[in-house]
Amino acid sequence: MDKIMRYPDRARTERAQLDAVLDAAPMGTLATVVDGLPWAVPMLYARDGDRILLHGSTGAGALRQVAAGAPAALCVAMLDGIVVADTLFDSSANYRSAVVRGNLVTLGEDESADALNALSDVLIPGRSTEVRGHRRKELAATLALALPITPGQWTVKVRDAPPGEPAETSSAWAGVVPVRSVAGAPVPAPWVASGTPVPASVSRLTRTA
Amino acid sequence: MDKIMRYPDRARTERAQLDAVLDAAPMGTLATVVDGLPWAVPMLYARDGDRILLHGSTGAGALRQVAAGAPAALCVAMLDGIVVADTLFDSSANYRSAVVRGNLVTLGEDESADALNALSDVLIPGRSTEVRGHRRKELAATLALALPITPGQWTVKVRDAPPGEPAETSSAWAGVVPVRSVAGAPVPAPWVASGTPVPASVSRLTRTA
Repeated sequence: MDKIMRYPDRARTERAQLDAVLDAAPMGTLATVVDGLPWAVPMLYARDGDRILLHGSTGAGALRQVAAGAPAALCVAMLDGIVVADTLFDSSANYRSAVVRGNLVTLGEDESADALNALSDVLIPGRSTEVRGHRRKELAATLALALPITPGQWTVKVRDAPPGEPAETSSAWAGVVPVRSVAGAPVPAPWVASGTPVPASVSRLTRTA
Repeated sequence: MDKIMRYPDRARTERAQLDAVLDAAPMGTLATVVDGLPWAVPMLYARDGDRILLHGSTGAGALRQVAAGAPAALCVAMLDGIVVADTLFDSSANYRSAVVRGNLVTLGEDESADALNALSDVLIPGRSTEVRGHRRKELAATLALALPITPGQWTVKVRDAPPGEPAETSSAWAGVVPVRSVAGAPVPAPWVASGTPVPASVSRLTRTA
């Protein structure tokens, strides 16, 4: 993680590699500039073709400022492993990361419903078909945004390897401790009647995670 | 995640709550402003009392710019669960997040060794005592930075709850799919002789994750 600038081979340049990283994480950090200062907030997102969908409340002040076309950067990163070398200097991390830069676009109310469905279906595939449609007041209370994916405006870095081989002979153990994110068994809300079937989308989520 | 500004009860104001969030994640996103534009990069970090330690290569151009005292924001976020309501509008996420704002300080070579040990020991507790000390050329190649934790310059938000109870009577399932990060069994590097004992720090990591 720390030394990405010194290891240009960690950079990935194919668009498919960007998509693979973006599609693997549900959450990123949206960074922008507010009054000349850095501003950052974690956000759920979904890639939809050549754009990244985001959403927030129309009541969120800073987000409105971003939505007004200010330049933004979405940073997505997943820690995949702790890379243990025989020295701290050569220890590292396996990770996948992407940064997408661009100007956010506010979606109109007509586009918002589809964008919100897409956001939900990335987090819980198929969920949007199990629930009622969006109500007008819900759409009015939601700010749906898109960050376009533009050539030259993104970077991807991946490290997926054992530690580098030590320059000096060493009999010490070295290797990788893999790290991954797993979904647990669904926990029903307190008011849900016992025996209420878990929606198919939720069952799939737990099975495939 | 999306509606944090509308739910002020998600904000946490105790310093201990900030520390708990910071200490639970190994990786954050460092955001700053470069030439008036947002700049963001994922970084491993460690809290050390009232400061956050970061490191990078002295060869990393953008990081040097940050190190030169530019204002920065470190955003840390963990997704803890997918909150499934009976409507998409009321669906949400359980998460812990923190943003710490401040000006980065470059650490001198004498402070760097301790900072790098602390960074390593947060990721792999006890590891720094199992390996040889840092060499001068290693310290010279490493940029160790500290972001001070200053009152009024941080925010913490936590959502850890079932979905809100539906306003309308519903017989539908609702609840939370918990998400967590787990460490797998250590994978030795290809050149490591079979039977080489796994270091105690690495064994503990896998057991306790």
